[in-house]
Amino acid sequence: MEQPSFAVRREKLRRLMYERGLTALLVSQPANRFYLSGFELHDCQCSESSGCLIVMADGKDWLCTDSRYEEAAALLWERERLFIYYGSSSEEINGLLKKLCGSTGAIGIEAGHLSHAFVERLEPGLKLEAADGLVEKLRAVKDEDEIRLIAASVALNHRMLAWLPSVLTPGQDEAGIAWAIEKFYREHGASELSFPSIVAVDEHAALPHYAPDKPALLREGCHVLVDEGCRLDRYCSDQTRTFWIGGTPPPRFSEMLHRVQEAQQKAIAALRPGVSGREIHKVAVDSFAACGMERFFTHALGHGVGLETHEAPRLSPRATEPLQPGMIVTIEPGLYFPGWGGARWEHMAVITEDGCRVL
Amino acid sequence: MEQPSFAVRREKLRRLMYERGLTALLVSQPANRFYLSGFELHDCQCSESSGCLIVMADGKDWLCTDSRYEEAAALLWERERLFIYYGSSSEEINGLLKKLCGSTGAIGIEAGHLSHAFVERLEPGLKLEAADGLVEKLRAVKDEDEIRLIAASVALNHRMLAWLPSVLTPGQDEAGIAWAIEKFYREHGASELSFPSIVAVDEHAALPHYAPDKPALLREGCHVLVDEGCRLDRYCSDQTRTFWIGGTPPPRFSEMLHRVQEAQQKAIAALRPGVSGREIHKVAVDSFAACGMERFFTHALGHGVGLETHEAPRLSPRATEPLQPGMIVTIEPGLYFPGWGGARWEHMAVITEDGCRVL
Repeated sequence: MEQPSFAVRREKLRRLMYERGLTALLVSQPANRFYLSGFELHDCQCSESSGCLIVMADGKDWLCTDSRYEEAAALLWERERLFIYYGSSSEEINGLLKKLCGSTGAIGIEAGHLSHAFVERLEPGLKLEAADGLVEKLRAVKDEDEIRLIAASVALNHRMLAWLPSVLTPGQDEAGIAWAIEKFYREHGASELSFPSIVAVDEHAALPHYAPDKPALLREGCHVLVDEGCRLDRYCSDQTRTFWIGGTPPPRFSEMLHRVQEAQQKAIAALRPGVSGREIHKVAVDSFAACGMERFFTHALGHGVGLETHEAPRLSPRATEPLQPGMIVTIEPGLYFPGWGGARWEHMAVITEDGCRVL
Repeated sequence: MEQPSFAVRREKLRRLMYERGLTALLVSQPANRFYLSGFELHDCQCSESSGCLIVMADGKDWLCTDSRYEEAAALLWERERLFIYYGSSSEEINGLLKKLCGSTGAIGIEAGHLSHAFVERLEPGLKLEAADGLVEKLRAVKDEDEIRLIAASVALNHRMLAWLPSVLTPGQDEAGIAWAIEKFYREHGASELSFPSIVAVDEHAALPHYAPDKPALLREGCHVLVDEGCRLDRYCSDQTRTFWIGGTPPPRFSEMLHRVQEAQQKAIAALRPGVSGREIHKVAVDSFAACGMERFFTHALGHGVGLETHEAPRLSPRATEPLQPGMIVTIEPGLYFPGWGGARWEHMAVITEDGCRVL
């Protein structure tokens, strides 16, 4: 039946729920739901849930879904605590929660991931309170299985990057390269991209979140920024490189890329348990400031990666929590010069007991 | 600047808002937002909006987004009514709505598409009310441009189906066939699939929403159900066929497929303005009942297709509204025999003045 790591994770969650005085936590965010149960990493679509988990303080947890998923759910979960709804999920789950928690038991909800209409129908006669971020906090620290799976996803990403220069040739366009990357991943075992690839030539590389409208062509003497990732066995990877196409790069490009790589190396050297994301971000900012370039670095230095491409922790000016062993983050400084171009260089690293290991 | 059809659609929406007494409607559902403005058909991700539209009773509409999208938005929208938020979108939009509507103007929200946390932060000092479905009601009736675009998406779907038998060969597996379909679409101009393809062999075809766990192989003497669609120039298509692989099909398969196609033909013959989705659904049910098979038809007969794969109207027992010219629906009866197999046969049709035209 159920794999043990899911049960272990729910026990850890119960400790966080105890601190908050929660009788139950309704887990509806898809990656959180999967993390705790193995059930469906993705919802059917953004506006249509595939189900939710009720984690109980007393240890008797429920998996709620509709009849389409009944057989899949039964492979993961005891039938006697599988709750199948047939009509309005919110109203039927309201009935179940009334039985489990009465009118006085505090029920945590993920208020940022449930629609307002759903909560309005769920609420009558129940004591609901917003309890966002509890599962995300657990997910930020990866267990050994997760580190192995993420390392495998990054390894495939490195294989793709080793192959990529063969298609970065003059005459190819941004959209064609993005599609070649996607095919490589899908034909080497990835289930999907972890996010739409960014392939940005010259001035397009100055836009950190460029999406092609009229795809530009690669030509001799241009630069191209490629930010991409795959999902392999559920887990995401995310890396960026910036390439010069054709001959020797001009000093402006080499200088830009050197500064970006230097900032990345300093940040990686500073990564260890106990420092905050804000401190690591500042290492990169200071590196750029030493050559007067800090105003061209316009985004956060990095973010956690796991079941989602963007998750806790952040390496940003607002991240004050200390980093912990087992966290996996991107380190992705960049410099962006509007109208001319830009560079970003991104690796992933796992925080170890005394530093970090680049994946 | 802006294309005229978006403005025309917002004028139609204003009439519906007037009937509801709304001073403003906050449009956040991505397809609704695109339909009314041309801005971003997809959100960044399910939990991260790319922006929203404020449609005002007085005709002075606003587009709200963050700085990443500012340039893209400015190509579509007058700069003076472009609202860029920098921190908390809900709190900053609250400030804008206070200026536009005061504390007494009724502001409609799409409560099924905004998170509970967002609405809690948006609400202080405003008069919000749920007003879901207004834009969806407009979107259900396609204009001429949309009918042309959807017909083009279906035409590509037919091309794919004409090619598909070349890969439906013994030894191929379900996942490989699904990937071949995706490549065909992407390499013939589609931006993406409109939904993950269903490729289901034999007993898998008995599950209307089958997703492969261990993909089955095609072999001589099996049947395979393929339900698939593409998105071309923003618009979706959705078709299903069921094939026999290898030689002459046995009578049980032929009989099943014949009954399904017969039910589809009767339903198509009954499609015209003024009848309800429920009546059309019943035509298919009655067709199956005539041979005692109605209990093996377990889902709704069809649904609208447009910017989304599933949209209004529905052809189901609960759909009581009369169909109108310009609506585009699927007609997809099926029969499912647990443990043995199933068949579904699906086309799309546009409702005309006196009947329908199959696309």
